[in-house]
Formats: sequence, C-alpha cells, structure tokens
Amino acid sequence: MNITVWNENVHEQSIPRVTEIYPGGLHAVLADIVKDEAQGGQVRTATLDQPECGLTEEVLKDTDLLLWWGHCAHGSVPDEIVDRVYKRVLQGMGLIVLHSGHESKIFQKLMGTTCRLRWRDETYERIHCCMPSHPIAQGIPEHFEIGVEECYSEFFDVPEPDELVFLGWFDIGEVFRAGCTWRRGYGKIFYFQPGHETNQSFHNPYVQQIIRNACRWAAPTASRDELWSAHIDPTLEDVRKGVVQPEDKK
Amino acid sequence: MNITVWNENVHEQSIPRVTEIYPGGLHAVLADIVKDEAQGGQVRTATLDQPECGLTEEVLKDTDLLLWWGHCAHGSVPDEIVDRVYKRVLQGMGLIVLHSGHESKIFQKLMGTTCRLRWRDETYERIHCCMPSHPIAQGIPEHFEIGVEECYSEFFDVPEPDELVFLGWFDIGEVFRAGCTWRRGYGKIFYFQPGHETNQSFHNPYVQQIIRNACRWAAPTASRDELWSAHIDPTLEDVRKGVVQPEDKK
Amino acid sequence: MNITVWNENVHEQSIPRVTEIYPGGLHAVLADIVKDEAQGGQVRTATLDQPECGLTEEVLKDTDLLLWWGHCAHGSVPDEIVDRVYKRVLQGMGLIVLHSGHESKIFQKLMGTTCRLRWRDETYERIHCCMPSHPIAQGIPEHFEIGVEECYSEFFDVPEPDELVFLGWFDIGEVFRAGCTWRRGYGKIFYFQPGHETNQSFHNPYVQQIIRNACRWAAPTASRDELWSAHIDPTLEDVRKGVVQPEDKK
Amino acid sequence: MNITVWNENVHEQSIPRVTEIYPGGLHAVLADIVKDEAQGGQVRTATLDQPECGLTEEVLKDTDLLLWWGHCAHGSVPDEIVDRVYKRVLQGMGLIVLHSGHESKIFQKLMGTTCRLRWRDETYERIHCCMPSHPIAQGIPEHFEIGVEECYSEFFDVPEPDELVFLGWFDIGEVFRAGCTWRRGYGKIFYFQPGHETNQSFHNPYVQQIIRNACRWAAPTASRDELWSAHIDPTLEDVRKGVVQPEDKK
Repeated sequence: MNITVWNENVHEQSIPRVTEIYPGGLHAVLADIVKDEAQGGQVRTATLDQPECGLTEEVLKDTDLLLWWGHCAHGSVPDEIVDRVYKRVLQGMGLIVLHSGHESKIFQKLMGTTCRLRWRDETYERIHCCMPSHPIAQGIPEHFEIGVEECYSEFFDVPEPDELVFLGWFDIGEVFRAGCTWRRGYGKIFYFQPGHETNQSFHNPYVQQIIRNACRWAAPTASRDELWSAHIDPTLEDVRKGVVQPEDKK
Repeated sequence: MNITVWNENVHEQSIPRVTEIYPGGLHAVLADIVKDEAQGGQVRTATLDQPECGLTEEVLKDTDLLLWWGHCAHGSVPDEIVDRVYKRVLQGMGLIVLHSGHESKIFQKLMGTTCRLRWRDETYERIHCCMPSHPIAQGIPEHFEIGVEECYSEFFDVPEPDELVFLGWFDIGEVFRAGCTWRRGYGKIFYFQPGHETNQSFHNPYVQQIIRNACRWAAPTASRDELWSAHIDPTLEDVRKGVVQPEDKK
Repeated sequence: MNITVWNENVHEQSIPRVTEIYPGGLHAVLADIVKDEAQGGQVRTATLDQPECGLTEEVLKDTDLLLWWGHCAHGSVPDEIVDRVYKRVLQGMGLIVLHSGHESKIFQKLMGTTCRLRWRDETYERIHCCMPSHPIAQGIPEHFEIGVEECYSEFFDVPEPDELVFLGWFDIGEVFRAGCTWRRGYGKIFYFQPGHETNQSFHNPYVQQIIRNACRWAAPTASRDELWSAHIDPTLEDVRKGVVQPEDKK
Repeated sequence: MNITVWNENVHEQSIPRVTEIYPGGLHAVLADIVKDEAQGGQVRTATLDQPECGLTEEVLKDTDLLLWWGHCAHGSVPDEIVDRVYKRVLQGMGLIVLHSGHESKIFQKLMGTTCRLRWRDETYERIHCCMPSHPIAQGIPEHFEIGVEECYSEFFDVPEPDELVFLGWFDIGEVFRAGCTWRRGYGKIFYFQPGHETNQSFHNPYVQQIIRNACRWAAPTASRDELWSAHIDPTLEDVRKGVVQPEDKK
C-alpha cells in the first residue's frame, strides 16, 4: 500500500512554534507516524507549494491512501486538483482528513455539506470512544486525555456519519463528533478532529494509534476505473440461457 | 392517539424531595407535559403497584404511545408484562424511554444489549443538538442548559442509533449520546437521558418540548398484528396472470 | 408550505408520447399530485427554458420543498443555479429527487458521489417496502406492482442512505435501492426511482401516495441562514456566571 | 483466532439429500470453508445433540468467532445456552448467522425483533452487492448467480442494518436484504441469507469467499468482561490534579 501525506505547509513558514513542535512540518511528522502501515509500500509527502500541489495524476494513481491536513489555504488548492482527488476516492483510494481539513474543498465536496462548526482556541479536550468494537478504536481506552487543543463543537454540518467512533469533550461546555467514518463510491473516509498546528496532539500515542488504525481501516479492498452509468447487457435471461457470461466475468 | 405514561412510582414513596419536585409523582408530571399530544385521545398513567403493572392486555391494545420511567425496581416488572409491551412495540406502538429507564427490561430486550453506562450524581449538564433537521429537535436551540443532573457517560452499550439527535456534556469530563432513535418492527423508539428523580429537568421547557416532539415522531404510522414468518403465495407470476391478487390486497 | 416542482421539460417537446401520458408535462402532473400538501401555501412549477431555470433567488427563498425531475439536459442547468439550490437545501429546504434526477448536478453535489447506476429500458418492476414504520411508507402495502418501468440497478453510487425505505425488483434479474433518504445540513432529501417519462408510474396511486408522504416528511422543521463556522462566545463559564446569555438566546 | 461452527445437525439425520450435498453435515462443510481463517487457531464444530449443545462455558470462552446454522430445532436450544452465547457476543465474540438461523433464539435476542420474513422453496436467486467497498465484499463481483435457493423476502423484521452489503433477487418477484451487519456491545454480527440445507449454495465459491471475508471482519478487535454500569471515579478534575489515573489506566 502506498500512502501519501498531504500538508498545506503554510503555518510552518510563518509560525516558528509549529516547526518547533512538529520538526520538518506536519507532513513529516504524520509520515513518520504512518510509515509502518505501508507494509513495504511507499510513504510520500506532498505540499501546496509543489507543482500541482504535489498531487499529479501519476502520484494519485499510485496512492492507495491519502492523509490531508490543511487550514488557512484551502482556497489555494485548485479545483482541478480537488476533482482529481475526488475521483480517486470514488475509485477506491482511502482518505483520512485531519483537524482543520474539515473545511477543505475535497472534504466539503465528498460530504455534500458546508462542514461548518463552532470553534475556539486553547481549550482542554478529552476523547471518549463510543464504538469500542470498531477497528479504528483497537487498543484505545474508553477515554483518554488530549490536553490543550482547539475546541471544535456542534453543530458540525456533515452528513450523519456511517460510524461515529469518538466524541470530544471540551472544558468550555462543548462537545464534538470527533472521529467519524463515511463511504463514498469505493473509497473509505475517516475524519479525526485533534491536531491543531500549535498543540501537541500528534505526539499523543493514542492519537498516533488512531491514525495508524485508520490507515488499515481505510485501505482499499476494491477499486474501479469507471465512474459512469452502464447499460445492462446481458440480462439474467441471457445469462441463464448460457449464451453469455455476466458482465463481471467478462 | 392514546398515550400511556408508565412510572415505577417507587422513589415517590420514600424520598419526600421527589414529590416536592414532581407533585403527584413523575407519571403525573409527564402526563401533564404530553396531554396535548393525544389530540383528542386519552392520556393515562400506569404504575408498578397496580395489577399487572397497570399494563393489562386491554390497556396496551388501546395504547399508541408509551412513555417509560423506571429506576430501582426494573427487576420487579414481570417478564410477562415485558413481553407484552415488546410485542406491542413490534406491532407499531411508539415507545419513549426516559433517563434511568435505560436499564429497564423492556429497553434491554428491544436493544439486544446491556444498555450499561457510566454514571455519577450531581453534575452539571448542557445538551447539544447534532441533528437540527430532526423533528424531535424542532424549536430546540443549538444547545441549552440542563443544570444539575445525574451524569450518564459513554460507553453507552446500545446498538448504533438510527439517528443521534442530542449529545450531553457534563462538567466532570463526560459526554453521552443523550437523545437517540431506533426502529424495532413497526414501532419507533426514542431514548432521552435527562430526568433524574431529584433534579428539575422535567420542568425545563426545552426538555418538555423534546418529549412532546418525540410523541409526534413516535406516533404509529403503520401497524400489524402478525409477528411471524409467512409463506409467499401467490408468486408474482400468479399475480401477473391476473388469477389472484397480491397478499396485500386480500 | 410552498412547493416548487422543477422539470427539465425537454422530452415533452420532442416525444409526443410523453405529453400524451403526462398532459401539460411532467411538472403539471407532479404539481397536481402534491397540490394538497402545500396546505394553503403555493404550488409552483419551474422549467429549464425559463429565465434562471425558473429558480430565481426570490422563488427559491420562497420555496420550502422542491421536487426535481431531469434527464437528458442535466448539463444545461448552470452551476450558479445548482449552487443556489444547494444552499437552500443546506438552509432547510426539502428536496425530492425523482427517477433520472439521480444524475442531476444538484443530486450529485449533495451526495458527494457520481450517483451512477446500471440501467435498461422497458422492464417490469415491483416495489417492496423494507421500512414499513417510516412515514413515507404510510398507507403503502408490503409490496406493489409498478408494471413497465426503466430498470435501474446496483451498484447505485450514493452514500449509504440514512434510511432505506423501498427496494425495486426488476424481472431481468436486477434490484435497486428505490426509495432512500438523506439529511444534508438542515435539509431533508428523498430519492425515488420510478418515473420514466414514457411509462405510467406517476399515475400509480401508491407512487402518488409515496410522493405526497415524502412532501410531509421533507417539510422543513428548522432552518438557518448562516452556512459558515462561528467563534464560540460566550463560553459556558461566562454563561454560568450569568453575565451573558448563550448564543441561542441572543 | 479460534472459530466454532455450530450446526443444529437435525436435517442431516432424516433427509439423505442433505448429507449427500454436504458430507459430514453442514458443520463439517462450513468448518472446512473457514479453516484457513483461524490462522493457527482452532476450528471446532458443535452440534445440538452434544452436552450443552457443545457450547460449554469453556468452549465459548475459548471461541473468538461463532458461526450459527439452525432451522427446525431453534426451540430446542436451552435459554441458558442462548444467554451464554449472548454474553460472549456482547463481550466481543464475532457471530456469523447463516440462512434459517434468522429465527434462532440467539439472533432474535441480539436483534430485539422477531426476525420474521416471507419465504418459499425452490426459487432462483441472484446476489447483488450494494456496498462494494466493504471488506466482506472483497473479491466479490457486482452480482453473481446463486441458482436454486429458498426465497427469503421482505419485510425482514430486523433493526436497520448498520451496513447493508448484499441484496438478493428472486425470480418469483421477491427481494431481500441478504447480507447485513450489526454491532452489539463489543461484538460484530453478520447475517447472510443463502444456505438452504438441500441447495448447493455453500459450494458456491463466492458464498465461500463471503463467509471467509466475514470471519476476518467479525474477528474481535476489543473485548471486555464486565457487562454492567459503573460509577465514575475519578472525575476529570481528580485526574487533572494528577492525584489519580483515569479508570482505563488502572
């Protein structure tokens, strides 16, 4: 499995604290977290400042799982690149969207909603697991402490998750559906809320474990090239007459 | 629509504060809250100390919607009565389970799980709405203050809700899926967490509105008598030949 | 409640059989089916050939529920109009998408998928209900005969429905999730498969009943203007100090 | 992982055709199908005629995944054994229920519904996949031919599946949610419809693949012993003071 970690990589250029906490940038740290999940495959990073955002047709075609971190520069990702990622997800590529990636164009496009929420900086967060049997929760306790994080709170304008795995509690009276899954086409999507650029969440062992578990869960188990409607031919009657084989055996 | 409010009515006999807060008992107060939802029908109350728990075949047959509050005497409800209520839900009767009713035999039987949770007395609760388009959330703000309540927290061992409408935030670091819906057979079920016998939640106007909304949502829109498998006869071929009418037109 | 019926109205101009079956066009027939659901409100029609497709800001602002029928001219609906409808759904407007509307831009945008399927003309369809307690199934038998319809079959590339109400059976060996609901933002969406322009489905009393039920189900119960993220202010601590009121009471 | 295959093993004693088609009984054939999924663990069989139905406390404690086939003797499984299996599922054991197991006591107890359906013998079935990205669908085509099977049709009285993976089409005008998943407690459950004792379905390579995929999907990823509510202690405040560790670290 080939994994690509996409990071906007903008805060890293202007806020020293970001690279102090996450040396080499968030993409470098995330790539390190997931490096063993590729299981012999490649772990790449890609950033906004690269040609085609580092997400050329070639790179995406060769990517089975994409991680996405973005925040202040969502609008700078060209629609053409967004469409390209969108098609790959529908074809089967897994997608893990982290923290402020909730308002990225690609997440909004896949959700079909605004993905808006309510937010405030520098609060205290605890994560609770409300679906302990989910593979993404493997090895994660009933609840654990994130510590200082940016508060994200409801109403989180996303379609009802296929699976709600984690809930976030914030000391200022707020709560959030912090870990959610959806399927789109042949692709699996996981959104996870902790991960502000000036907080320590990606150094939390449980957060790291969740991201690694999500890599395994979102790994493609099927894929397709075609994304359009098809005429039914042959019919079952034709198949039963033995004259032709069903489409899937062609 | 005929509504029956069932209350264990046990704390009322031994803890003066309960009837100070809820004069006449929780059943009297709940019956008053929903009295306009029957729209010309009857609103009854039934309690554990009555013959057959007040839930005779006759009463249940004549009940379209049942509210359930119980706590310390779940085990005193005979299995025969539980089975009776169970069948009525599967036939189409709506069911609203309140607060500590989460560990009632009837709720456990309909859920197919333990319905266990984590709990602690005398905490502060705020309710958030995470599905504002749901009819049970009509007229309810994004979030509102419950104030002092018993804390219920995850992991709440219920099947994944068909719809998660409300989340509860508690000041001691806890969070709960506080308002959930499920369908069982032809019946609709709503569980709502606030409502401890020594707290004021049932006097909260938003809580009252939620319970009233839930009455409308859970009202039967279809019903059936039979609860067993049936042989398919006629087949579509028979129907198309015009010889017989489909089962549903008999 | 004001209802607007949108119809592409293209086949009506070139295929005489369409207006023979549906005099005045599909929009006229659909408007007649739902006319009692507005309950004192207005039932309008709008078509592709009108200025701004008949869906001006003014019309949409005044629309609580939109029905959508389109087929061969999906690409002719300007993106600007699609965005306008999209925002209204997220603000709370109900949307009922019929038959070949599955590949309309607006449905694809709200689903976040291709909405592709497999299809073939002139087959025989029967509809089964797999969620009889749903309000959209009220008054509908366990199954009923559509007769000749266009076959739509799986894989239907939509997000897993929030509720799967109807399944379609086709004599050529195919099956389809024929009646599905989703929520997007504050809006409720229902998709229903029967309704090919040269078949009789919209004259079927059960199909008509389903569409009318869907109008009631999708009617807005809440709405909003703002579609963007908001800073949390005041915090719960501020609220509890009594200094300020929560946002929702402002 | 240790797998136990439970079979009623009653038809095998009276209908010669059953053991002609499935030599050694259905349990033997099913055990052979899943033998490589234990990955070094044990694959056992257990039958109704054994002491305690072959499902002693010891056997169940040592079972990670249970397959269940039953039909005419559901009533002969003692409630005590059913409770034992029920608790193990809630503790994390996976459960795969096959064909006529839909009306077994254990499946009904976990579903909280009657699990009734409509049925007829000797029809022709085709299976369609409506969630190709699900791991249980890995390697399975869009649709495939079962051939002669017992028809099971809607309304199938189960809770709305967490995931609907397969749909069954039957030539007599019927359709069925043929492959469904649910979570209960810490356990994962998969129901699959084909598998009548006098038909060939368990010799179908795709059916075998689905059952094997289901073993991997339902394998426990978490488990628990306790099935009851717990007092919250310490609170977050206690934890943050550093005096105590959260419950999960004890």
